[in-house]
Amino acid sequence: MSTAETIEYPANWTRRHLLDLESLSSEEIVILLDTADKLKRMTDGCRRKLSLLTGLTCANLFFENSTRTRNSFSLAAKRLGADTVEFSSAGSSVAKGESFVDTAKTIESMGVDWVVTRHSTPGTPHLLSRELDCSVLNAGDGPHEHPTQGLLDMLTIRQHRGQIAGLTVALVGDIAHSRTARSNIWGLKKLGAHVIICGPPTLVSQRWSELGFEVSYSLDEILPRCDVLNLLRIQFERQSARPFPSVQEYAALYAMTGDRVRRSKDGILIMAPGPINRGVEITPEVADGPHSVILEQVNNGIAVRMAALWLLAGKQEV
Amino acid sequence: MSTAETIEYPANWTRRHLLDLESLSSEEIVILLDTADKLKRMTDGCRRKLSLLTGLTCANLFFENSTRTRNSFSLAAKRLGADTVEFSSAGSSVAKGESFVDTAKTIESMGVDWVVTRHSTPGTPHLLSRELDCSVLNAGDGPHEHPTQGLLDMLTIRQHRGQIAGLTVALVGDIAHSRTARSNIWGLKKLGAHVIICGPPTLVSQRWSELGFEVSYSLDEILPRCDVLNLLRIQFERQSARPFPSVQEYAALYAMTGDRVRRSKDGILIMAPGPINRGVEITPEVADGPHSVILEQVNNGIAVRMAALWLLAGKQEV
Amino acid sequence: MSTAETIEYPANWTRRHLLDLESLSSEEIVILLDTADKLKRMTDGCRRKLSLLTGLTCANLFFENSTRTRNSFSLAAKRLGADTVEFSSAGSSVAKGESFVDTAKTIESMGVDWVVTRHSTPGTPHLLSRELDCSVLNAGDGPHEHPTQGLLDMLTIRQHRGQIAGLTVALVGDIAHSRTARSNIWGLKKLGAHVIICGPPTLVSQRWSELGFEVSYSLDEILPRCDVLNLLRIQFERQSARPFPSVQEYAALYAMTGDRVRRSKDGILIMAPGPINRGVEITPEVADGPHSVILEQVNNGIAVRMAALWLLAGKQEV
Repeated sequence: MSTAETIEYPANWTRRHLLDLESLSSEEIVILLDTADKLKRMTDGCRRKLSLLTGLTCANLFFENSTRTRNSFSLAAKRLGADTVEFSSAGSSVAKGESFVDTAKTIESMGVDWVVTRHSTPGTPHLLSRELDCSVLNAGDGPHEHPTQGLLDMLTIRQHRGQIAGLTVALVGDIAHSRTARSNIWGLKKLGAHVIICGPPTLVSQRWSELGFEVSYSLDEILPRCDVLNLLRIQFERQSARPFPSVQEYAALYAMTGDRVRRSKDGILIMAPGPINRGVEITPEVADGPHSVILEQVNNGIAVRMAALWLLAGKQEV
Repeated sequence: MSTAETIEYPANWTRRHLLDLESLSSEEIVILLDTADKLKRMTDGCRRKLSLLTGLTCANLFFENSTRTRNSFSLAAKRLGADTVEFSSAGSSVAKGESFVDTAKTIESMGVDWVVTRHSTPGTPHLLSRELDCSVLNAGDGPHEHPTQGLLDMLTIRQHRGQIAGLTVALVGDIAHSRTARSNIWGLKKLGAHVIICGPPTLVSQRWSELGFEVSYSLDEILPRCDVLNLLRIQFERQSARPFPSVQEYAALYAMTGDRVRRSKDGILIMAPGPINRGVEITPEVADGPHSVILEQVNNGIAVRMAALWLLAGKQEV
Repeated sequence: MSTAETIEYPANWTRRHLLDLESLSSEEIVILLDTADKLKRMTDGCRRKLSLLTGLTCANLFFENSTRTRNSFSLAAKRLGADTVEFSSAGSSVAKGESFVDTAKTIESMGVDWVVTRHSTPGTPHLLSRELDCSVLNAGDGPHEHPTQGLLDMLTIRQHRGQIAGLTVALVGDIAHSRTARSNIWGLKKLGAHVIICGPPTLVSQRWSELGFEVSYSLDEILPRCDVLNLLRIQFERQSARPFPSVQEYAALYAMTGDRVRRSKDGILIMAPGPINRGVEITPEVADGPHSVILEQVNNGIAVRMAALWLLAGKQEV
């Protein structure tokens, strides 16, 4: 069912939670990526099952709708032999007036080893990590961070380019609402990439340039210099409050089209965290074309989540 | 936990998908039924677990509400040792503008071996089978087909009568909206049954008689000739658009009652795909009576789904 | 993964269903508690996995919203190696007109070994137990009983006090709507506790005193005599029909505060079935204080559910 390859727990891994990439060291990020690569091979491309975490239980505690990330964590847990249990806000005790921390402590008391959580409020995973004894994994805290998404993006880049240091990577689109952007920004910077933050002025804060990042409002201007483009979905469901270019204007200025690919570097990598809006941030020609690694990103999502679960469980002395 | 019986992969099985019964040969249908019978015995009536498919993963991708069929597929997968993962349209990325095919490809990229899908649009499983590398199973595509339901009905008939050839089987009720009817019609015809399509003129197209089937608007007229009656549920939720007999009229003309059973052949088999509406298409006396095999059909649903999953997985060279 | 300890099936256990505590003998309750204690140790505090029930399947059939109890049963089943399958009323065949018993029989026919059910109508599990061959577990039938909640409360008391006989236990709050109260009342009485039923007159029936229980409308009056307080949540969602003290009045008279703890016996146990409403029936100081065993109760929920599943399965001669 699996290869004969074995895996050794990295002596210098000491974290018990995965809350964000901003607070990780570059060494820790490299351990996560190396572990993900190894577990991906050992599971034949994240398709087969190992028994590294048999008998452990992963609880998903999602306070925002998510099918994809939730299932990706569940599959990662199952691939390593763990059981999973699903909690969501709908129909749960939160509706009966229970506090968020009480809900999480109750779940922990059922004997779970990891709580994977998504919440609209930034910092909730950090709060939980101080209250719980089990491991906490951030699966998205509002617009703040989504560390496993950042890791899977970096893993995909590294698999194609061998290393991240020295690459120019542009994050394009709705930076303001994007936890994916934030996790990429911090992770890529730590590993030595040159990060460009690109999008309409309404969706890209000038503060990023004060923090030392390159900010651009023109995709066409930065295109010739980029090794990687990460095309963020416009979060229409969050746009009501601010003036925004129309979909047509956005697509004209920022959509990755076949024409723009031809004006890019040879071998440019086109990434998107999904779900994609064909015709908005990416045209079908590009999404299904040779530069797109969108489906590899999905597969690598299982790999980095297996790595995170396994590394964090180790600190609990399983 | 299981019997010592072993099962050998049929050399002449070559399908990778189960999309409909219309395109299967009679030999392929017989392989599915024989495999189902065998796996049912090996699992002690679909109650115990085998490890034939350990390490594989089955994704349910349902775009219509379903508890029963979805759980039947999940249980079948678990009975053979596979893992399952649930996707549904509610709260999923489809709501964020993602295309159906992109959703399915994303799920496939997570490393699943089968996608079981239900959708209101006929032909969607066929579309997916051309786009995905993993196996696709149709769990109902609009009013078109529901092949595992057809197979479980045939399996139940064969278990009681030894063979299907030569039997007279009537499908009674709402043929127009019934994928169950369509899968039964094609499957039964291929195995040599005489199929009668019976129901009110508003719900039975005359086109069936042009295709060579017997069409009847009177249950009482055909009753003395039938070996099997399959009583389809009136899909009240789909009736708004067309003139329809009232529930009372329908029950008077087409409900299987104790009186009608007494006017039937000895040993007539009474089937219904469920959920049943007691007092509409069937009276409690008949539903709970000695001729009813409704609950055996449910059990055989697990058997044919185990068979389909195992046969399709084989083509992936597990 | 687990201890080397083994467990022997109790020769004098004969039940096939767990419907309520009122009809159990004290011997049967003690077997359940002893088994729970033992399985808790064998699973290292309900955290590790055994294979006592591998190959069996537990179906959750919940007609009322529940995340906590449903997941607790699921986790208990998984801890012993069983598979689980989830049915709920939303989107199910009940919406298509199917009867409750037909739904349950259909699920049973899929080959499940236990049906765990919650329903707003008292007596539904008893009805199912007469109609099904598999085991039925009551996870709450309206305001009637919630036997595993009663058992986990008693297990927690026994773990702290060694025995239940001779203790004074007060159930405080919304007795009228509480199945938890009813299961505690019968279970505690059978094991020899002195039970006090305490709450506002609108929520405590005088009938309890006719049945031989002590009834009190004043927490402050009974406080000095109590060894254990079980603080029931006010079910605001069920209060519309009757006059009720305001939340402020309720909290003033019945909330367990630090001040009331100091007027209690040394070592008083403070329990609550959760979800708790901080500031209503309990203050944060008490909920998080040294007398609170609320999270232990949650953990013991897994223990008693493992015990129930294992004991009932035994009667099916697994």
